[in-house]
Amino acid sequence: MNHTTHFDTLIHARWLVTIEKDNEVLEHHTLAIRHDSIVAIVPTADAAEWTADEVVSLSEHVLMPGMVNLHGHSAMTLLRGYADDLSLMDWLQNHIWPAEGQHVNHDFVRDGSLIGMAEMFRSGTTTINDMYFYHQAVAEAAQTAGMRTLVGASILEFPTNYAKNADEYIQRAMAEREAYLNDPLITFTLAPHAPYTVSDDTFKKIVQLSEQHDMLVHCHIHETAQEVSDSLKEHGQRPFARLHNLGVLNDKLIGAHMVHLNDEEINLAARLKVAAAHNPSSNMKLASGIAPIQKMLDAGMTVGIGTDGAASNNKLDMFAETRSAALLAKVGTLNPLAVPAATALRMATLEGAKALHLDDKIGSLKVGKRADLIAIDMGSLETSPTFNVVSHLVYSAGRENVTHTWVNGQCVMRARELTTLDETALKAKAHEWRQRIQ
Amino acid sequence: MNHTTHFDTLIHARWLVTIEKDNEVLEHHTLAIRHDSIVAIVPTADAAEWTADEVVSLSEHVLMPGMVNLHGHSAMTLLRGYADDLSLMDWLQNHIWPAEGQHVNHDFVRDGSLIGMAEMFRSGTTTINDMYFYHQAVAEAAQTAGMRTLVGASILEFPTNYAKNADEYIQRAMAEREAYLNDPLITFTLAPHAPYTVSDDTFKKIVQLSEQHDMLVHCHIHETAQEVSDSLKEHGQRPFARLHNLGVLNDKLIGAHMVHLNDEEINLAARLKVAAAHNPSSNMKLASGIAPIQKMLDAGMTVGIGTDGAASNNKLDMFAETRSAALLAKVGTLNPLAVPAATALRMATLEGAKALHLDDKIGSLKVGKRADLIAIDMGSLETSPTFNVVSHLVYSAGRENVTHTWVNGQCVMRARELTTLDETALKAKAHEWRQRIQ
Repeated sequence: MNHTTHFDTLIHARWLVTIEKDNEVLEHHTLAIRHDSIVAIVPTADAAEWTADEVVSLSEHVLMPGMVNLHGHSAMTLLRGYADDLSLMDWLQNHIWPAEGQHVNHDFVRDGSLIGMAEMFRSGTTTINDMYFYHQAVAEAAQTAGMRTLVGASILEFPTNYAKNADEYIQRAMAEREAYLNDPLITFTLAPHAPYTVSDDTFKKIVQLSEQHDMLVHCHIHETAQEVSDSLKEHGQRPFARLHNLGVLNDKLIGAHMVHLNDEEINLAARLKVAAAHNPSSNMKLASGIAPIQKMLDAGMTVGIGTDGAASNNKLDMFAETRSAALLAKVGTLNPLAVPAATALRMATLEGAKALHLDDKIGSLKVGKRADLIAIDMGSLETSPTFNVVSHLVYSAGRENVTHTWVNGQCVMRARELTTLDETALKAKAHEWRQRIQ
Repeated sequence: MNHTTHFDTLIHARWLVTIEKDNEVLEHHTLAIRHDSIVAIVPTADAAEWTADEVVSLSEHVLMPGMVNLHGHSAMTLLRGYADDLSLMDWLQNHIWPAEGQHVNHDFVRDGSLIGMAEMFRSGTTTINDMYFYHQAVAEAAQTAGMRTLVGASILEFPTNYAKNADEYIQRAMAEREAYLNDPLITFTLAPHAPYTVSDDTFKKIVQLSEQHDMLVHCHIHETAQEVSDSLKEHGQRPFARLHNLGVLNDKLIGAHMVHLNDEEINLAARLKVAAAHNPSSNMKLASGIAPIQKMLDAGMTVGIGTDGAASNNKLDMFAETRSAALLAKVGTLNPLAVPAATALRMATLEGAKALHLDDKIGSLKVGKRADLIAIDMGSLETSPTFNVVSHLVYSAGRENVTHTWVNGQCVMRARELTTLDETALKAKAHEWRQRIQ
């Protein structure tokens, strides 16, 4: 056995969509994994003598980087379809918050996160930028699942089951973070809920902590028009201006939604390297508006894509979101050239990675990066005929066409079978929680 | 064997979503089929002694009426992903029309339609309101597949491979129609392509034929703003006014798209009982605009949902379209209460049937109607937990959750296996056509 040509995993793929360059498609190539990393990408013909512990032949498949879900609340899968077709405040105040108040605890968050992670693996997501309470439970779920997870430690002024005020949220987050400082998959972020639920003082503390500990900040920003007009009344300025004055706007910030940014704010965000997490389905369903994605891209902003939580979108499906991002941008600008397929796919992968300061590790197929990969079957009727795999990945394929998912070199789904999670047990858990909640 | 309690098929289902009333959900009911029709719907406990040639137990499934795809061009599956992310005229003039000119013939249309029908069965569509050339080939495909098909005989002024002028299109359509006058599944419609490709004289002939032979008329109308402004220049009136003057607006007309209707036109359409076929993905992808669906519904119009062809939408998936219809209406009106789940589901079924004058036969689960049915598995992780099956059908489920499809009493897909069509052979055909076209 020649050590230099023996690998942990060898994947022979019909197509590799690398995301290294727009529309780059390698045909009949082989990707080699050792430990957690991609160590070679060569034409399959050149790998004829190579061996591996596991060899995966994907004769009709695309191999591409795993999707980066840039904004979600995994645990909320347990409230999927619990309340729909309501106005935002009715939905929050009369349905979601009361249910959360009554039921959310450590077990709820662990079980809900596991179900969400299983759903994400099954639909090609390998990284989740999460935001919820009970960070310990989210981190436990991430370890069990083997998912690359940004654990967003929610911070707000008002009390929940989890903490009684902003200081206690922060305290718990920073304490729980300690155990994961060297974890290869888990990173804690600071997640002030939104400008309208977090005070100036708290934002200042968050900026300080972010600098001190090199932590990302993940915050809902300008999701609705009302958020902006309320802030004008209360603070005499738009939330984005307020955040700017508080020092929150910098390259560590991921702003979820940012539907209602004006041109000036887009330019400011681009200049200060604020990243946006675009959530098309959630913005449509809650009637928040159409985020100006093409303008953001034109201004040079980093824009990734997220699913939001299952209570407001109902499916944690990055394939559906990527398609919606491409379609909504076109109708929103009345320009069919807006956000073409290759751009949408890069947003769902490398741009998301960039927003998370992980683009040196994930987001494209490149030797030296971590092996966060997915395989998509192009041999289905729904992807026939195959003129252009990049188009098919965005416009024709669905989550059901994802066959394999690897995170950090580990195969977490093989031929649609989860390897780290027990799908049947998770469905039973969901059923139990439904009986308790309903 | 008691004749009165023996059936061709008995389906025991966990849930029946009947579409007879908004949000009506029957639990643990049994539906009985004899020949082509639904002959009983009773609580499963009451059917304990009943027998059938085939008994289907759907312990975690919803049984509902098959989806009615109110606007499509099935044969265009062969151009799926052939050209994307282009302006409408570039796309049509430099890509789609040249490809059609070179390749479209009887075999192209038969093979493409079969692939489209297979894709539609697999995603829960039982009726297609089609529009293309080579009607004979579409009808042959429909007979082979066993799909309920409105064969739209395309009519336009300019020549294609199929005919040299409007009169010849009409002549061929009326001649080919003869053989299908008594077919239980196939109905020919008159399909003038659009106001901008059909002359006044031809529209007048079409109205006459429609009256004389009681034929539906299926036409692209007000798809783009440019269509409206061009007509103002050329005819001094908007296309809708021109069609009104020509007598085209009546209860036999299905207008595809109708994105750019003003309030007056919506009221006129409602009064004259013109039906709309809404194609949200196509309208988004081609940047045509957002159709005012909620206004149409408020005015009392019949509004169904369509996929359009695979060259402009890329997936013939009525689950995706129904979800998009609900989401796009909300963001388009900035009202999260617009087009709730139950309304979207009724549009995709009973409203489509109504537009086709088939609501006495299909579109809801009712004794006496034809057995056009689909089963959707709610036992998947993606539909867990299950608080509300109507919400899940629209917001959470995907085409891949469809397990069974019946048309006119015949099971055309059983546990995801097509029974009338050979999936492997169709994929091979798609591959062959790709090699020829590319």
